[in-house]
Order: sequence, then C-alpha cells, then structure tokens
Amino acid sequence: MVAASSTSAARRRVAVIGASGYIGGELLRLLLAHPQVSVVAITGREAAGKPLDAVHPHLTGTGLVFAPLTETGGAEVVFLALPNGEAMTHIDALAGEARIVDASADFRLHDRSVYAATYGRPHAAVAWLPRFVYGLPELFREDIRRAHYVAAPGCFATAVTLALYPLVAAGWLEQAFVNGITGSSGAGASPRPTTHHPFRADALFAYEPFTHRHVPEIAQALRLKTGQEVDFVFQPHSGPFVRGILVTVYARLRQNLSPEGLHRLYAEHYADAPFIRLRETPPNIKWVGGTNYCDLGLAVRGQTAIVWAALDNVIKGGGGQALQCFNLMHGLPETLGLTAFACNP
Amino acid sequence: MVAASSTSAARRRVAVIGASGYIGGELLRLLLAHPQVSVVAITGREAAGKPLDAVHPHLTGTGLVFAPLTETGGAEVVFLALPNGEAMTHIDALAGEARIVDASADFRLHDRSVYAATYGRPHAAVAWLPRFVYGLPELFREDIRRAHYVAAPGCFATAVTLALYPLVAAGWLEQAFVNGITGSSGAGASPRPTTHHPFRADALFAYEPFTHRHVPEIAQALRLKTGQEVDFVFQPHSGPFVRGILVTVYARLRQNLSPEGLHRLYAEHYADAPFIRLRETPPNIKWVGGTNYCDLGLAVRGQTAIVWAALDNVIKGGGGQALQCFNLMHGLPETLGLTAFACNP
Amino acid sequence: MVAASSTSAARRRVAVIGASGYIGGELLRLLLAHPQVSVVAITGREAAGKPLDAVHPHLTGTGLVFAPLTETGGAEVVFLALPNGEAMTHIDALAGEARIVDASADFRLHDRSVYAATYGRPHAAVAWLPRFVYGLPELFREDIRRAHYVAAPGCFATAVTLALYPLVAAGWLEQAFVNGITGSSGAGASPRPTTHHPFRADALFAYEPFTHRHVPEIAQALRLKTGQEVDFVFQPHSGPFVRGILVTVYARLRQNLSPEGLHRLYAEHYADAPFIRLRETPPNIKWVGGTNYCDLGLAVRGQTAIVWAALDNVIKGGGGQALQCFNLMHGLPETLGLTAFACNP
Amino acid sequence: MVAASSTSAARRRVAVIGASGYIGGELLRLLLAHPQVSVVAITGREAAGKPLDAVHPHLTGTGLVFAPLTETGGAEVVFLALPNGEAMTHIDALAGEARIVDASADFRLHDRSVYAATYGRPHAAVAWLPRFVYGLPELFREDIRRAHYVAAPGCFATAVTLALYPLVAAGWLEQAFVNGITGSSGAGASPRPTTHHPFRADALFAYEPFTHRHVPEIAQALRLKTGQEVDFVFQPHSGPFVRGILVTVYARLRQNLSPEGLHRLYAEHYADAPFIRLRETPPNIKWVGGTNYCDLGLAVRGQTAIVWAALDNVIKGGGGQALQCFNLMHGLPETLGLTAFACNP
Repeated sequence: MVAASSTSAARRRVAVIGASGYIGGELLRLLLAHPQVSVVAITGREAAGKPLDAVHPHLTGTGLVFAPLTETGGAEVVFLALPNGEAMTHIDALAGEARIVDASADFRLHDRSVYAATYGRPHAAVAWLPRFVYGLPELFREDIRRAHYVAAPGCFATAVTLALYPLVAAGWLEQAFVNGITGSSGAGASPRPTTHHPFRADALFAYEPFTHRHVPEIAQALRLKTGQEVDFVFQPHSGPFVRGILVTVYARLRQNLSPEGLHRLYAEHYADAPFIRLRETPPNIKWVGGTNYCDLGLAVRGQTAIVWAALDNVIKGGGGQALQCFNLMHGLPETLGLTAFACNP
Repeated sequence: MVAASSTSAARRRVAVIGASGYIGGELLRLLLAHPQVSVVAITGREAAGKPLDAVHPHLTGTGLVFAPLTETGGAEVVFLALPNGEAMTHIDALAGEARIVDASADFRLHDRSVYAATYGRPHAAVAWLPRFVYGLPELFREDIRRAHYVAAPGCFATAVTLALYPLVAAGWLEQAFVNGITGSSGAGASPRPTTHHPFRADALFAYEPFTHRHVPEIAQALRLKTGQEVDFVFQPHSGPFVRGILVTVYARLRQNLSPEGLHRLYAEHYADAPFIRLRETPPNIKWVGGTNYCDLGLAVRGQTAIVWAALDNVIKGGGGQALQCFNLMHGLPETLGLTAFACNP
Repeated sequence: MVAASSTSAARRRVAVIGASGYIGGELLRLLLAHPQVSVVAITGREAAGKPLDAVHPHLTGTGLVFAPLTETGGAEVVFLALPNGEAMTHIDALAGEARIVDASADFRLHDRSVYAATYGRPHAAVAWLPRFVYGLPELFREDIRRAHYVAAPGCFATAVTLALYPLVAAGWLEQAFVNGITGSSGAGASPRPTTHHPFRADALFAYEPFTHRHVPEIAQALRLKTGQEVDFVFQPHSGPFVRGILVTVYARLRQNLSPEGLHRLYAEHYADAPFIRLRETPPNIKWVGGTNYCDLGLAVRGQTAIVWAALDNVIKGGGGQALQCFNLMHGLPETLGLTAFACNP
Repeated sequence: MVAASSTSAARRRVAVIGASGYIGGELLRLLLAHPQVSVVAITGREAAGKPLDAVHPHLTGTGLVFAPLTETGGAEVVFLALPNGEAMTHIDALAGEARIVDASADFRLHDRSVYAATYGRPHAAVAWLPRFVYGLPELFREDIRRAHYVAAPGCFATAVTLALYPLVAAGWLEQAFVNGITGSSGAGASPRPTTHHPFRADALFAYEPFTHRHVPEIAQALRLKTGQEVDFVFQPHSGPFVRGILVTVYARLRQNLSPEGLHRLYAEHYADAPFIRLRETPPNIKWVGGTNYCDLGLAVRGQTAIVWAALDNVIKGGGGQALQCFNLMHGLPETLGLTAFACNP
C-alpha cells in the first residue's frame, strides 16, 4: 500500500467530524495528500469503529479508523462535515481550543430569524452565529485569514455568488434570473428516490420552485460585500450526472455593455483569485470535476448579459473550499493541496 | 421475425427520404406500427442498397431496403428527413403529386432574407417557401389540416414556442429568458467532437450564446399566431444524456399572477391539444422519452413566472410531430400511432 | 389526454397485483396498449388509493387508481408483480377462479428443498408448486398454452437458459462459464446503496460469487427440457446502466464446431420463436431495450464457443414475458401487443 | 492561475510526443504534478502551435505550447503517446541520447512475425524490438530499472496479465476464459461510430471475437516470466462508461483450492507491488478511476477460480504505468507522483 499521509512536527493536527459522507470523504482525500496536515481523527456515528476503507473503499492503506462522532483526538483544527442541523447541536462540545471549519449550513446565515425561516426550525446555538465568518475566499479572503470559525458556503451559493458578484459590485445589475443544474452527489450519500439510479440516470427536472435554501445565503453574501440588495430569482434543477454544478445567469443590465467591458470587469474582480478561471468559451462541468476551480464564462448583447459558473459541488462547493479556508486561516498558500486538474476524459 | 408492417388497400403509401438519420429512423419506427400507413420506400445516399437493419439494427424483419435518395416509390406522402439544406435542393424532384412533410429547417422560415441570415446561405427554392405550413399542431392545427406541404418545427423551437405561447397570447409577457438543455441525439447520427462519448458523458455546457438558429422560427410562429413581437433571449446548453429537451422560461410578466390564474391560462389554451400534459410538478424529460408528449410545468411568484417544457427531441421535436401533422393532413385522429407512453425506468 | 385503454366485450379482464414496481409498471404499460385486454384492477400496498400516475408519472390519463393489495376486481387473469416471497403468502386469496401469471420467484422452482436452500426460507405454499408451469415460451410453449398458472422466469435465468439450451439439447456442451451483466433496474424500484446514482453511475463490479439465485432455476429448466445436468458457472455483475442484461457464455464443447454448424443449431432450435433474433454480430443491449426480444450472437473457435444473449430485463426478463405467456394461455398470437422495436437512439 | 509545474536543477527533463490524445493528456497531467520532472516539450501534429489548454481545456496555466511532432526540446526522457504504428516510424529520429517510454503497441511484441500477424503490417523498425523491455513493473521490475527503452503494456493486457500471473506461476492453471469490459476512452480521442454518445450511452456489446490484439502480448509476458504457454481465451466488450476496465477470469484449476490458498498465492506474488490492492470483495472500476491502482478480487469453488482485475485504462493501462516505469528507470520511488486516490463519488 502507498503511504498517503504521515505525521510531522510542522503539520497541523486536524480532525474530520462526520467523515462518512461525500463532502467529508473528499475533504479527507485532500487532507491525506496535503503537505501541512496530519489527520489525527475521523469520526462518524454509524461508522465508529470501522476502518476508513470500509466506508470509503477508495481511501485505502491509511490506517485510519472512525472514532465516535465527537471525538476530535486533540486536533488543532476541526472540520465539520455533518448533515445540516447537527453542527449546531455539537458545537460547544467540539469547539474547545480548536479552530473550526464547518461545511454544513448551520453557521452560514448571520440572522437567526432568516435561519429559522429558511430551515424550518429555530437555530440551536445562536450565540455562535456572530463568531463565524462566511468562508467564500473570493469575497471574504481577509476575514477568513483572521477567523477562528469559518462556515464554508453551500455548493449552489458558491456558484451563484461568484457569478453575480462583479456585476453587483459595479452597480450594473438590474435583475437576474439564475438557472442552476446539479449532479446527484449534491443530495448526499444516503439513497433516496430522486437519486435512485434507474430514475436519475435519464432524468432532468426542476425542484423547489423559487425557494431553494441557498437564496438567503447568496443575498447575505452580496449584501455584506457590496451593501446592495440584489433582485434575483434562482431556480435549481437536477441533472443526470454525478458531480458538478452549472449556473447560467440571465442578467438584465442597467446599461449596454460590450463583451470587452464585461470581461474586464470579471478579470479585475478576480485578479487575485487563484481558483477562478475566466474561460473564452462557455465553461463545462467536465473541466472542473475533481478540482477546486470555478470556471466562469461571459456573453453579452445589449442590456442582457449571460454569465456561467461551473464548479465541482463536492470540492469547490464542499471539501475543497473548506480546505482553501484552512490554508488562509493558517497563513499557508491558498492553493496548497488544491492544485489538481480534472482527469480527462 | 415479427411482421411489423403490412400493406392494405386503405393505407396511405408513404416514403421516408433520408431514413438513415435519427429522426428518419424514429419516424420510420412509428410509421411501421401505424395502422393507416404502408411504407413503400425508404431512401438514403450512402445507405442505398442496404437492408434497413444494416443501418438501424433495432428495426428488423421488415424486408425494407434503402433506395437511392430521391426514389419515392410512388408514395402519396413523402416525409423528408434530410440534413438541413438538402430538402430545398431536391424539392422539385420529390414533390410531384405527393404531399410532403419536411422535418428539416428548409421550409420553416417564410422570409428568404431571414433564412439567409440564419443559415448563412441563400435559400435554393424560394418559390416553395409560401407553400409550406409551419407544422406545430398546437398553434396551427387547422392550417395543417388543409395543407399539402408542411414544415415540421425544430426541437427547441417546439418546446420554447409551446412554453411561451399562452403568455404571449394573453398579452401578459413583458420579456422572457429561456434556458434550454438538449441531449446528444439532437446533434444527429454523425460522430463529432462534442458528441464523442468520452467527452459528452460527463459534460454540461452552453453553446452558441444568444444566436441559436431556432430563434427566428420561434419569433415567426408567435408573431403569426398572436401578431406580437416577443422580447426573448434563448440560450441552449448540451447535457450528458441522449434524448430529451428541457426548457425553463423565466418570464417577466406585465402584472402579478396567481398560480391558479397561470394554470388556467395554459389549461385553456391547450384544452384541445392531446399531447400537451400540464403537470402538477415540474416536468421531467424521463417521462416524455420515447413519446410524442410535451409536458409543461408552471410556477409563479409576483411578476415572475417560470414555465417548463419537456419533450423528446427526436419524436415531439422530430419524427413524431411529422406523423402528427400527417394524421391531421389526412383527416385521421391526431393521436393515431402516437399514443405510446415512456418506458420506465 | 390520450385514451390508452378501453373496455370491450371481447377483452380479457386482467388485474396487476403489486403494480407499483418496475416490472408491474412495464407490464401495465404493455397491457394498456394490448388490443385484447382490459385492465380492471391495479393494486399496491402503500400505493392503495393513489391514482396510477402518482406512482408511475409516465402512465397518464388512464383513470386507474390503486386498489388494496389483494383486490383483483373480478379479473379473469391475475398478474402478480410482487416482491419475492409475497406471492406465496397471498396465492390462496388471489387464485379463486382466475388464471395467474406470477412474475416473482415464488413458483419457479418445483422442489421445495431447492427453494428453501436458494431463498433461505421454507416455501409457504408448497401445494401450489406443482400447479405452476415455468413460463419460458421458447422451451415450454405447449405447456404454457395449457396452463392455468404460470411462473415467469427470472431475468438472468431467461438470458442464460436461452443461450445454453441449443448446445445442451445437442449434447455438445462439456462445461460453461457464464458472465452476466445487469443494469440497475434489475434491483427494483426501492433505493439502496448499490443503486444510489452517485455510486452506480460509474460502477462495474461482480456480486454473489458463484451463488446467484437464478442458478437452480436455469438448471431445472435445462434438466426438464433435455434431461441433462449441465455443468456451468454463472457469475453476475452490476453495470452503470439502467436497462438490459448481457450474458456471455464461454462454452467448452465436446467436439470442434464450425461457425455454420453453430449457427444452424441455434437457427433450428429457435425457428418458431418470434422473439429470438439471431444476430450476425455480437448483440447489443441497446437494440433490445424496451422490447420483448432476446438477441443472440455466436462465435466459435475449435472446441470453444462463445454465445451472447441480450435482453431487456424488465420486459423479456419481466413484464413482457408474462404477457407473452398470457397470449399463449389464451390462444392469442404470441406476439400480440409485444411487437414494439427499441427506440433509437 | 496556479503554477502547476516548475523547473529545477534536479528535475528530469521530459517530453511527451503526441500529447493531444487521452493517454498523452493524462500522462501530462501526472507529469505536471510530479516533483522530479520538468516538462520541456509537448508535441503534436495537428496541435503544433497551439497552447496546451486549446487541446486539453482542463490543463490550464502551464504556459506549454505544442511543438511539431518530433521536436523533443532536448529532453532526457521522451514519452511516446502516438497512435499505434507511428512510434516505429519516428523512433530513430526521437531516440538520440534520450531514454524512451513508449505507450503504444509498437515495441511490445518481441517477435516481428507475431507483430505482423497481429497488426496486419510488417514492423518498420525491427532493429529496435530487442532493445525494448516490456514495461509491466509487477512482473518485470528489475528489467525496467535497468532499461533505456520501455514499451508500456496495453490496457487490457495489463489487467489480464496481472489477473493470470500468480495462477500461471504456481502451475495451477489448466485453462482460462477471460471476459473483459472497457469504457469508451479506450478507443481514443477521435470520434467514431462506436463512441458516438447517442449510441454508446446505453450500449453493451462484444467486439473482435477471439482475436483482440492484446492476446499475443499477454501470452508473451506470461511466457517470458514463467516459461509457460497459457491456454486462454480473451473476449473484450464495450460498456457504457468512460473510464475503466474490468476483467473477469474464469480459471479451470489443476486441483481444488481453498479461498485462503488462493488469497495467499496472490498476496505473496504481489507483496512488493505497491499498486496492486487485493480486495476482500469483488473490485469495482469506480475505486480505481483516476488512479494507478489495479484492484484484484478472488473467489474459488472446487476447481474453478474467478479472478477479477479492475484498473483505469488511461492510467494504470496507459500514462500512469508509463510514469511508474519512468520512476523505476531513474531510481525514484516507484509510487512518486502516482499516489492519488479516486475521487468519490
């Protein structure tokens, strides 16, 4: 077997809480190859006591065994990859001395009433809400650098926010209609009717008309960064593929815009963002699969712009983004352990 | 072998010109099972001389052999399933006494200058343009009933027009942004880089920003039926599946609308349309695959409506629609030979 | 909506018990289009009270509503599409005056001890075992014609038996190694980890080494028809597709054989079998999808023959075969309602 | 953009000749992340002059531009990823001072007459045949370490040879029937009818009965290593997925064998092989996708053993294996740059 991870004095000791899901698994895969990390604990409820590859057969030879759910093994940094609603019930037990990066939705929304309205239950740890920074590095890099607690954004929220932000910041956006499509991995590792292979393999359909739970998160991020209330509709769809998100923004502009002007706007806003790739042609989920990149594409005619964003929902919309935040929080290069390109084909 | 077709005195004698492609093949499959049809000729350029199942291995035991491209075998009705640009070069030779249903784009646009601008070449048979009726039964049923020459609409054009029409007819539509996704069969039977399986199997991407060739066709159909110029953007995407089209219309309305009001509008306009199914939930390409149905879904919030249309691009957007027109042209029940449901799963 | 079914004096009144699964659904789709059938009842446990299209969204406009599980509505013929183990618990209640075609495994094995060893439980209705005929028309057509109770074969059992039978009947088979691959629909309509789309979409793996439950069924069918005990190994695999089974038989022959001799053997044995298609090239699951055909392919070199069988597991390996038996039992043409070709692509 | 490669005094200067195909692309992806490699040239015939990401859109920000086909840029090591038949026509021009790892079939077979019979043409550079070592590290590690010229094995040949070798070496194998299934990437980057997405997406079929071109390669490798002529049949199939090969060996043994005995045999023979993973359950192509691993599974009953091998045809059956040979040739750790696990899901 190949030794995929080793300990070292300089390495940060990390734990992954809830490592049996897809985001936990991909985060773990990235951590095991990260040169400045030592994984000291992986935990799970039903997985406790099992070796890692009993749950993730692709991660072999590591020697890691699942610990009970909240045992962090003295980690300096604790990654939470729990189902929505669980991080807030365990946060006091888990926090201790450790820094936290939470991949769930529990600490993304700063307003408890918005949380309650969005997730249909009161928040169970409201004292923690103001302590978390929203972990979208392309908008909040400096905040993340100084943060002890980071809430990594949702997959659709990442794509939509990155697609809209420059237009909003420039004050050019009148209204946006955002069409989103996600692969089946976005629904998580538990089988359900809409991810049953015989059904999903040839299916394409919309869900949750007008009311996806990432909408308040997107609005909050854009408000926080630009001070503006954005008029937008977001409509998600489920597609017959496993990984990836493609969002297509139909933007009504306040003025005519040239292709060059639009391109310049995005190039400037993302000049320092190593994972944003401005494509000459419309982006393709294929080229971001297995990577932390978010590819953007642009088109414009008169007062209508179309902006595409493509990313891997489990990486840039999940474990990779959490690791990107980790790098920033610890003064490491933002791209460390995250430079893999997509496999092709 | 199962006898899939037989001749009968009462049956209409039909030919399929260019039967080696996907639309020709599906049309032929439907015709072979149609109780009022006798297939007297199938033709192809490279396929000439070959038995049918050498080209379409799924259509066995018919005894049919490809004739040279323009030999109609004395058919009363000639279906054209040629690549765009070929029908107009053969139309004089093919027409003769026969009625014609053309599945290509050659006779859809009534204005030769629009044709030239859209397809990048002058039209080769302009005298024929006014003789063709646009074969979208849900809008032009009576015209088709009286027609000798019918141009069946494009796949995307069918979906978009059916989704937009009631809103336009009611005068409620301010502007529409239409997101379309198509499967790989839409590109036809000839291998190309964007339909190479190793590429396409995990790909999702936009193409032809703002400029899809079905846009003028949609505008013409809505203008012809309602007298209105519709302000809309249509943006197609390619998805990782074989069959089906899903379009999502983001409609800016001129007034607030209730879900009931929106539903009533569509129910009324399509009350007599046997292939339109108004769904309670957003439609799914899975449920229209292999059928002539177009499933519609509706949602509304304030002055924004979302309308979905799902159909099988090779049937309702191709051979099935051609057969639906044939039925109307010959005073047969509109649904004859077209009532198959989708297979599941 | 299209009227997909209607009653008629001459039509047989049929019920489908357990119509909410995949085989029940496909059987029902076929029955609704069958010219000699009237569906008088569909039943389900959890589905009771729901309209048909609430469970099978592709089957619309029929007016059918699920009745409680065992209410046959006075049907003359009762199709059972229940999970394994349920038909035998309800058989006494369901039989009454009606003929029965059972699509489950409950009445396929004639020997109660073989049943118990194979399915890990005692049989609950042993008195019924001798009353059932094994419903593989290509081997037992005359028995089925005279039968009141028919047990339709399993999907893999159908493919393997049809592939092996001529070689066994001729006395040429020394030993066979049979490689099978099935799509995800074979696992049924209930979500489970091995049919979770994110897992299954790129997966290919073997299961149940040496011990698939169709092995005794195959042995019994070949023994019954030929009097021989066949030495064979069958190994199933799961593939990343929805519908279809492909089996590849590696046959050690007792003598050298020419391609012509092998072809002649199969052509003779299946001369009267309308759903067996002997292909010139290796068969493809694509060409049998959605059909009741079983395509066979043959190759030979010295004393080794390779025989392929491809079929649709939900039709020829499920509901279609049940309907084929129904036709035979009622003196109807064997192919009635079963002549559909595959869609392409 | 992320700097994915940089030069360093210690790094080996390498070139990839024919880098526009799938194996060249994956090899390049691995080389760009390899800590002891500097890519000094990539070449292509039609790609010459284009930046890397114009051909491989997933490999961005490298600054690499395709050079004309045979310009190696003074590389110390030249990887050939040309279509079969091209390496032998360019070998004299390319060799020079450089070491060569060829991923094509041109130098795998040591006997010119076997080459001619297998590939249907005379070999164009027979003087080079004896200079090449067969690059299957698990069998010929020491030879590769000393080699200047290495011919990396074919994808199916790798899987079949690794599955058979221990049984052959132990003298236990009487005869083997080998069922193979490959994804569409095995056919390369050029579109063709059998890899047209609308066709391939739901297809599963055999090809080249008895006569696959990797058969002589497998026989030669086993003969060379064990001195035995192996009696085996290999039958390939094409499946509806992109990456991966699964072979299932049906082995007739010379004696009864226990599961423990079989497992011990494989464990011993591959004790020093870091990329062989002996699985407790049948292996799955999913867990090896994107990796250099070959997963093996074992089952036995009486005198029949079943052995499975799963690997990624483009990596362990292509570019990864070439890099594994490179590592051995240069005294580097065999696993350097090759330790990535599969993404999941």
